[in-house]
Amino acid sequence: MLVGSVPVGGAAPIAVQSMTTTDTRDVEATLAQIGRLADAGCEIVRVAIPRAEVLESFRAICAGSPLPVVADVHFDHRLAIEAARRGAAKLRINPGNIGSLDRFDAALEAAGEAGIPVRIGVNAGSLAPEVQDRDWDLAEKLVASAVAFCEHAESRGFTDIVVSAKASSVRATVDAYRRLSGLVPYALHLGVTEAGTLLGGAVKSSVGMGILLDQGIGDTLRVSLTADPVEEIGVAWSILAALDLRRHGPELVSCPTCGRCEVDLIPIAEEVSRRLAGVRTPIKVAVMGCIVNGPGESRDADIGVAAGRGVGLIFAKGEVVRKVPEGEIVDALFEEIARLEAAL
Amino acid sequence: MLVGSVPVGGAAPIAVQSMTTTDTRDVEATLAQIGRLADAGCEIVRVAIPRAEVLESFRAICAGSPLPVVADVHFDHRLAIEAARRGAAKLRINPGNIGSLDRFDAALEAAGEAGIPVRIGVNAGSLAPEVQDRDWDLAEKLVASAVAFCEHAESRGFTDIVVSAKASSVRATVDAYRRLSGLVPYALHLGVTEAGTLLGGAVKSSVGMGILLDQGIGDTLRVSLTADPVEEIGVAWSILAALDLRRHGPELVSCPTCGRCEVDLIPIAEEVSRRLAGVRTPIKVAVMGCIVNGPGESRDADIGVAAGRGVGLIFAKGEVVRKVPEGEIVDALFEEIARLEAAL
Repeated sequence: MLVGSVPVGGAAPIAVQSMTTTDTRDVEATLAQIGRLADAGCEIVRVAIPRAEVLESFRAICAGSPLPVVADVHFDHRLAIEAARRGAAKLRINPGNIGSLDRFDAALEAAGEAGIPVRIGVNAGSLAPEVQDRDWDLAEKLVASAVAFCEHAESRGFTDIVVSAKASSVRATVDAYRRLSGLVPYALHLGVTEAGTLLGGAVKSSVGMGILLDQGIGDTLRVSLTADPVEEIGVAWSILAALDLRRHGPELVSCPTCGRCEVDLIPIAEEVSRRLAGVRTPIKVAVMGCIVNGPGESRDADIGVAAGRGVGLIFAKGEVVRKVPEGEIVDALFEEIARLEAAL
Repeated sequence: MLVGSVPVGGAAPIAVQSMTTTDTRDVEATLAQIGRLADAGCEIVRVAIPRAEVLESFRAICAGSPLPVVADVHFDHRLAIEAARRGAAKLRINPGNIGSLDRFDAALEAAGEAGIPVRIGVNAGSLAPEVQDRDWDLAEKLVASAVAFCEHAESRGFTDIVVSAKASSVRATVDAYRRLSGLVPYALHLGVTEAGTLLGGAVKSSVGMGILLDQGIGDTLRVSLTADPVEEIGVAWSILAALDLRRHGPELVSCPTCGRCEVDLIPIAEEVSRRLAGVRTPIKVAVMGCIVNGPGESRDADIGVAAGRGVGLIFAKGEVVRKVPEGEIVDALFEEIARLEAAL
C-alpha cells in the first residue's frame, strides 16, 4: 500500500512515523515541527483532529507538508470524513471509540472515495465493546478487537488497511502483534503506547519493537515518548539500525569508560553524538577510552579514536592517521569525517 | 553459582550489574560510586584492575563494598591472581588477551583457591588466536572462542564459569548468545559492548538484551553506556520490567502528547519520573494528557492523572479522587502515592 508516496508493507522498507505535538490550528508551528521531523528522518507524520475547527488548518498542513499526513481521529467519524476530503494521506481510526459500526463504515467509505488507506488502531484503552468484558488476557482482547474490525471492513469491501494493537504493557503488545501477524494479511503498525519519558520510553519501545522486528513482524513503527517528537525519530532509527534493518546517518560506538580510562570520555562522546546529528553519511564512528578494546573497535570503524593519557590516536579506515591532545580529539575526528565524506 | 551472596544462573533472578568509572586507586570515590549504584538497584559491581599499584586499593574496596566486587583484568594474569587473593567475588578474564593458556590456567587456579567463579569474557576486540583469521562471521568467532576457552577450563577441572560473548553489533551479539545458550551449560552474562551514549546505547542494549531475555537467554546483565553508571542500572531495570521479568520500584506510563493535549505535559512527566526515583514501592503511575486514552490508562494504574484544559483529574486505584489545577498535579500525585504507600 501507499501512504502518500511512501510504500508500507510487503517488501517495502520499514517506515518511520511520528506525530505532531503542536496545536493543529497553528499551521505554521505544525509545519515547522513536521519540517524538523522530516529532517530527522521521519517518513510519515500523524496529526490530531480533535475538533471540526481544526479541519481548515489540517487542509493547509496537508498542502504544505513534505511528508504524507495521517489524520488521527477519535470519537467523531465526521472528522474522519472531512479530513479525508482535505488531503489526509491516511486515516487513523479506532473503531472501538468511534461510536458504532455504521459510523466506522461512513469513514471507510470516505477513505475509499479519497483513495487512501485506513489504520485500524486498536488500543488497550478502547477495545471492541463485545470483547471488553471477556475473561481474556489483554493481548487476546486486542487481537480479537483488531480481527473483528478488519473482518467488518472486509465485509464492506475495504481492504486498504494497516493494523495496530497497542498497549502500554510491552508483554501484551508483543503477544498481540505476534498473534495478529498470523491472523491478518495487512501491514502492521508497531508501537507501545504511553511508553513514558525519553529514556524509559525508549527502553520499553526498543524491547517491544526489537523483539517483533527481529521476528520479521512489523511494517511501520512509531516510538511514543513524552518528549520532543524529534527524539522519537532518533530512537526509531536506532532500533532499526541495531537490527541492521535500515540505517539513517552514522553509527556511534563508544565505550562505557571504567577505572582504566584516562581521559574525560563522556563529554567527548556526547559532543561527537551531537555533531554526528548533522552528518548524513552512514559511517561508523568509534570513541574509545582505553587500550583494551579501543584499538580493535577503532580499527573496525570508519573513523575512530582510542584515547590514552591526555591524548587520542585518531584512526581512519583502520590506520592511525594522527595523534592529538585530548582537547582536540573531537575536532580531529570531524576533520577526518569531512575528509572521508569528501572522498566518497 | 554464587557471586558473593548473589545467586546467578539456573532459576535465580536475573542479576543486574554495572562497573565503576572512578580511578580504582581512589578507594573513597569508588566506594561512594558503588554506594550510589547499590541504591539504584545494582547487585554486582565490577572494578578495573589496570595495574598492580591498584591492588591494595582493590582490597579496601572489596572490604568496604556493600555489593560483591568483580575484578576486571586484561593482559596480565598476575593481576587476576592477586585480585583473587584480595577479596574479589569473581574474576572477569578474557583469555584471548591474557597472553597464553598457561597464564589463563594460573588465574583459574587462583580463582579455585579463593573459591570464586570466573567470567570468561570474550569480546569482538580480543578473540581466541586460532579463530581470529578464520573465514567465519563475527558471531561464529565469538562462539568458537567462548566454547574453546570453556572447554579448556573444564579440562583443568574448573567449571565455576559465567560466559559472555559481546560485540558492539547487536546482531552479532544476539546471534552469538543464541548459539552459545545451546552449546554451554554455564550462566550467561549479557551485554552489548561500547553501546554508545545514554539514549543510543540504551536503545541498542534494550533491543539486543530484550530479544535474548524474551527467549529465556541470559542470567545476568550489564548495560554499557558512555554515561554515569547509575544510568546503566536504570536502563537494566527498565529492560527487565518491560519483559515482566523483575521490577525495581515504580512503573511510569505517560502519553506522548499530541495536538489534543491541553497541558504542558512533558515537564510534568519528567518531574514525576525524577521524583519516582525516590519511591521503592512497585506501583504503576500514569501521566496522561487527554481524554482519549487518559481515563482508561489512569484507571488501570495505581495512581494516575488524566489532564484536561488546565486541570488534572487524579485517580487512585481506579477512582477519581481529586481535581486539581495544572500547577498542583505533581504534588497531588505524590500525596496520593504517599497515602497509598502508608496504607500498604
